[in-house]
Amino acid sequence: MEQEVNPKVEELKELGKFGLIKLLGEKFNHHNASSLTDINENAAVIAHGNTDSVISSKLFIENIHFDLTYVPLKHLGYKTITVAVADIIAMNALPKQVIINIAISNRFSLEAVNELTDGMRRCCDRYGIDLAGLDLCSSQTGLTITVTAVGETDDEHLVQRVGAKENELLCVSGDLGAAYTGLVLLEREKKVFEVNPNEQPNLEEFSYLLERQLKPEPRVDIIQNLQKTGITPTSMTNVCDGLASALIHLCKASKVGSVVFENKLPVDMLTFRTLKDMNIVSTTIALNGGEDYELLFTVAQKDYEALKGVENVSVIGYIKEEAAGNQLITNDDRQIELKAQGFGEVKE
Amino acid sequence: MEQEVNPKVEELKELGKFGLIKLLGEKFNHHNASSLTDINENAAVIAHGNTDSVISSKLFIENIHFDLTYVPLKHLGYKTITVAVADIIAMNALPKQVIINIAISNRFSLEAVNELTDGMRRCCDRYGIDLAGLDLCSSQTGLTITVTAVGETDDEHLVQRVGAKENELLCVSGDLGAAYTGLVLLEREKKVFEVNPNEQPNLEEFSYLLERQLKPEPRVDIIQNLQKTGITPTSMTNVCDGLASALIHLCKASKVGSVVFENKLPVDMLTFRTLKDMNIVSTTIALNGGEDYELLFTVAQKDYEALKGVENVSVIGYIKEEAAGNQLITNDDRQIELKAQGFGEVKE
Repeated sequence: MEQEVNPKVEELKELGKFGLIKLLGEKFNHHNASSLTDINENAAVIAHGNTDSVISSKLFIENIHFDLTYVPLKHLGYKTITVAVADIIAMNALPKQVIINIAISNRFSLEAVNELTDGMRRCCDRYGIDLAGLDLCSSQTGLTITVTAVGETDDEHLVQRVGAKENELLCVSGDLGAAYTGLVLLEREKKVFEVNPNEQPNLEEFSYLLERQLKPEPRVDIIQNLQKTGITPTSMTNVCDGLASALIHLCKASKVGSVVFENKLPVDMLTFRTLKDMNIVSTTIALNGGEDYELLFTVAQKDYEALKGVENVSVIGYIKEEAAGNQLITNDDRQIELKAQGFGEVKE
Repeated sequence: MEQEVNPKVEELKELGKFGLIKLLGEKFNHHNASSLTDINENAAVIAHGNTDSVISSKLFIENIHFDLTYVPLKHLGYKTITVAVADIIAMNALPKQVIINIAISNRFSLEAVNELTDGMRRCCDRYGIDLAGLDLCSSQTGLTITVTAVGETDDEHLVQRVGAKENELLCVSGDLGAAYTGLVLLEREKKVFEVNPNEQPNLEEFSYLLERQLKPEPRVDIIQNLQKTGITPTSMTNVCDGLASALIHLCKASKVGSVVFENKLPVDMLTFRTLKDMNIVSTTIALNGGEDYELLFTVAQKDYEALKGVENVSVIGYIKEEAAGNQLITNDDRQIELKAQGFGEVKE
């Protein structure tokens, strides 16, 4: 007999994204021993003898995930690959293949589709990723793209959100908040343009911020460098909806708490100055900005010395017992409970 | 140096779907030995030691792929799984996992999302498929779904579009045209409803046609029965855009021609009668109707006797040399060159 699920009608936003995913996912049963992960990981892990494939699919919808008024199609193509493979990298696996689906309306020319796929190809070529499938269909409402990324690893190197333990070091790659700051600049220029289409924006001094928003790179280098120094993180996740959301998600999966120091958060000087000019506190953006596509991971204390040999990694705090929650120690020594914001919010 | 692609702006429809896929796909380079197929197959094949994974991703967009005015969400969920795994089955592999992405606008309640995923779960449970990943995002324009299906096979059993040889038998599973006929009925009732919302349609006598449209089944049984009788097809593909399109695609990949006999085309009696009442020739719909999700495959002549032990398979013709093209022999013994119609058209 099938069990009917009859929940009372609640607002979807009440549950939050991860709450809803959990609720819906619990209805499904597992039938195959090769299905190694539950749906709460960055990507699906599927066993094949001694190796595992790691698979993730990402959906990109016009005016939700991108705005073609300021996003060049070539950059968009590049970014869709980066975003899809980011989940593979977050499992400590190297991305090997992508499968691409594109839905286009008839307002797009062949040239436009070429631009988009050229951007995809550039990212694939740069990181040695193969196009394993491509499908096209029509759309009435705009551009929709799905990129499914496939990577390979083995049980020894596979890293998941589950795995962080008390006293381990909490690390993040690169810097935080730049992509969001780039988005704020682009949105501001869009508004200026709508009022005065002849105004030519000069955004040259902000090029780092725009690049982080428009054409982020997958952090293949970080997992390669960790492997070179012999460090296997004990847990890892992709920072896509802001550091706070990623951290809370990782700690929940690992059943631990954490402490993060505000003065250890890696914020680029240009990000800091640009946000300051807009009267925005950079810590807020570093914690909740989104679209960083950096790696948040934990390493054992014993790896602290070896970690110094890996470029572009900051130790931002450490793991505590679960009851401690997730605490930010501010520059003026106050302690604040970290909360994730927006649709990425993690409810209890 | 990167090569720039600068095609002249042509209408996308000029190229056709497969022409465009081919053009765009050619720009990408392969870097990994594990990428076994090019993008022209039903699904991507990725090697892992002795086994291969077979992966396919399908995008479903509201008002392009489904119309919620007459498609119940539970059926839609079921069908998205069927359609995604159909490409895995077409490679002679058993589907094992799915990864689901859903974009929903705020007009959907939790109950609606539950209905949709319940339908997905039913199909997964029935065919032993595991949910390996689930992601949700918001949408402004309606419901968009991606289902990525993963299956497993080995080099010995893998079947592709490439492989058909002269004199081999051309076979198709199930019957053709019923799903399209069901769609015509639903579209007709929708128009009646728009004029007179109080009119209650009575479609009970057409339930087989509606089920074929709304809730098609993946043909796992066919590949299981072929394996039981020891038959490995020499080539195979999924009949999703009509038999003619599938056949031309398969023959092009295999560099062969074919002959199909009109009187061998499997058309269900209800499909035939219903189309006749609408003054539509059933052969046209059997060839071009779309959404059958049946299997078109070739077997060696020596397997003819064994094939009789596999239920729900019709031999509809045979393979000829490439120069012969793809010919339909009509009931009155005329010979007509087969053409694919619509966006699925295969251009030279």
